[in-house]
Amino acid sequence: MKYTIGIDIGGTNTKIGLVDHDGNVIAYSHLSTTAYPVFELYVDALSDEIMKLINANKEFPCIGVGIGAPNANYYSGMIEEAVNLLWKGNLPLKKEVEKRTGLSTFITNDANAAALGEKLFGAAKGMRDFAMVTLGTGVGSGIVVNDEMVYGYDGFAGELGHIIIEENGRLCNCGRYGCLETYASVTGLVNTARQMAENYAGDSILKEVGKENITGKLIGEAAKNGDKLAKQVFDYTSKKLGLGLANLVAITRPEAIILYGGMISAGKELFVPTEKYMNDFMLHMFKNKVKLLPSQLPGADAGIIGAAALAEEEITKGRK
Amino acid sequence: MKYTIGIDIGGTNTKIGLVDHDGNVIAYSHLSTTAYPVFELYVDALSDEIMKLINANKEFPCIGVGIGAPNANYYSGMIEEAVNLLWKGNLPLKKEVEKRTGLSTFITNDANAAALGEKLFGAAKGMRDFAMVTLGTGVGSGIVVNDEMVYGYDGFAGELGHIIIEENGRLCNCGRYGCLETYASVTGLVNTARQMAENYAGDSILKEVGKENITGKLIGEAAKNGDKLAKQVFDYTSKKLGLGLANLVAITRPEAIILYGGMISAGKELFVPTEKYMNDFMLHMFKNKVKLLPSQLPGADAGIIGAAALAEEEITKGRK
Repeated sequence: MKYTIGIDIGGTNTKIGLVDHDGNVIAYSHLSTTAYPVFELYVDALSDEIMKLINANKEFPCIGVGIGAPNANYYSGMIEEAVNLLWKGNLPLKKEVEKRTGLSTFITNDANAAALGEKLFGAAKGMRDFAMVTLGTGVGSGIVVNDEMVYGYDGFAGELGHIIIEENGRLCNCGRYGCLETYASVTGLVNTARQMAENYAGDSILKEVGKENITGKLIGEAAKNGDKLAKQVFDYTSKKLGLGLANLVAITRPEAIILYGGMISAGKELFVPTEKYMNDFMLHMFKNKVKLLPSQLPGADAGIIGAAALAEEEITKGRK
Repeated sequence: MKYTIGIDIGGTNTKIGLVDHDGNVIAYSHLSTTAYPVFELYVDALSDEIMKLINANKEFPCIGVGIGAPNANYYSGMIEEAVNLLWKGNLPLKKEVEKRTGLSTFITNDANAAALGEKLFGAAKGMRDFAMVTLGTGVGSGIVVNDEMVYGYDGFAGELGHIIIEENGRLCNCGRYGCLETYASVTGLVNTARQMAENYAGDSILKEVGKENITGKLIGEAAKNGDKLAKQVFDYTSKKLGLGLANLVAITRPEAIILYGGMISAGKELFVPTEKYMNDFMLHMFKNKVKLLPSQLPGADAGIIGAAALAEEEITKGRK
């Protein structure tokens, strides 16, 4: 049996895991992402942690390293202009880790890594055509077509969060209007709740707590407890999300769409209306044929497992 | 040098060509699609024409047959429930042609065939990631990702014409509202012109000819001649098309988008505003990086050449 190292680089922390062929994390390590203002020193520290983990687990031979990081480009092997990291410019992460560890290293962004995690170890096991959509602070996506990740011409495909679903809709962080992300992210959900709470005549926990204290988690819990306003918020959000997903289906016709990220803790409150609207908005021949599934990766380790899946997938396909 | 047979099955006529490695049609044949109410008799006649063409051109050895047809499914090898053909149900076209000719046969729908034609012989030569969008009676698309056609899970991916770009927009033939096709097809263009002509205060050829006599060609010519209303019609249409294309780019990030079909005869009147709006609606990192190009296949033979490209592509990739 072969093992891989999966690394999840976040803005604050970097998580490292040694992962087996079934997607189980055998051993962990971590380091601070922010403690190294100079990229080279960060790579030194990261590579040290990788080698320590490997040397402490020699009975589990490691065949390669996968890394999920913000703005990581699979093609170039570089982190390109990531706004949430300390280091500026294009950073040759793949090359530098390979140089220091001697291990084949592959990088991609967090959403793509998560999609590969679902493909090898999660809800999309064995699927050749599917999409994974993250509903967190923003909306990200990783799309697989013909058994391959969709990287597009420059490595940055899969920006489902930035399809425009309403021409003059909400202002997005990207500077445009009406992006799916402005409605279907947790941020969008909270904004919808704040707007709706203002004009809502009935009682609701969302009004009681005060605008500034509304969180995604609170809305989810309120909806589960039967709060009508919270249910309306999910209905509105699900309609927008359903439209975006139906548009994705028209283009790539996945076997399933996997939802992932903070918002899926709302469970049925999110899935039931989203599935309904997705099918309403879907072209007749696709209706009720595309599965909508929750992620099956363990939340805390999903980033590590996804990154490890990238390494495993690439090495299995004979790439370097 | 190897040759392929390309077949373009339309509702009325079937065009057949023997095509060389550079996309030139060496010899032609054709038959009526409507003259054979029974599918088996049509396949008999089609196979006879194929063999006659091959036998009359023995100096050009044929390695396989490609067919573009409405609702043709690459995976199943069948025409599935095509409303514009006489024959009902699922028709095993690939199998029946192979049985009668002894030649490897591949089928796909018209839009996908056209995309493959552009890939092998036209505007997308050598590209691994691009999209071809047909602007005709409807809006069709063929999308290539990672050097492979996007067929999706069931063979029917690539329905860009049916992404919803306006939630409560125009009623589409598919029964839903706001599909890109209702705005960006020639039919949509004409409908826009009819609506705008009603409320237009100035002079315009589009008002003079009377609502029922407005055609796509007339709008294109009027715009070229400086007719202000016709230019407004293209501006509106291009804005909707630009939005749809920008959404496609967010998902698959093609190197180029190739426009094809009746509407492209409008030339700059279509391309200049569409490119502008596409970039306006595009995520910052993709702006001004995606080429918008006219088809480079010869109009009359495009269907044959695209179908031949399918056969060449499949055989080159070792498929059967």
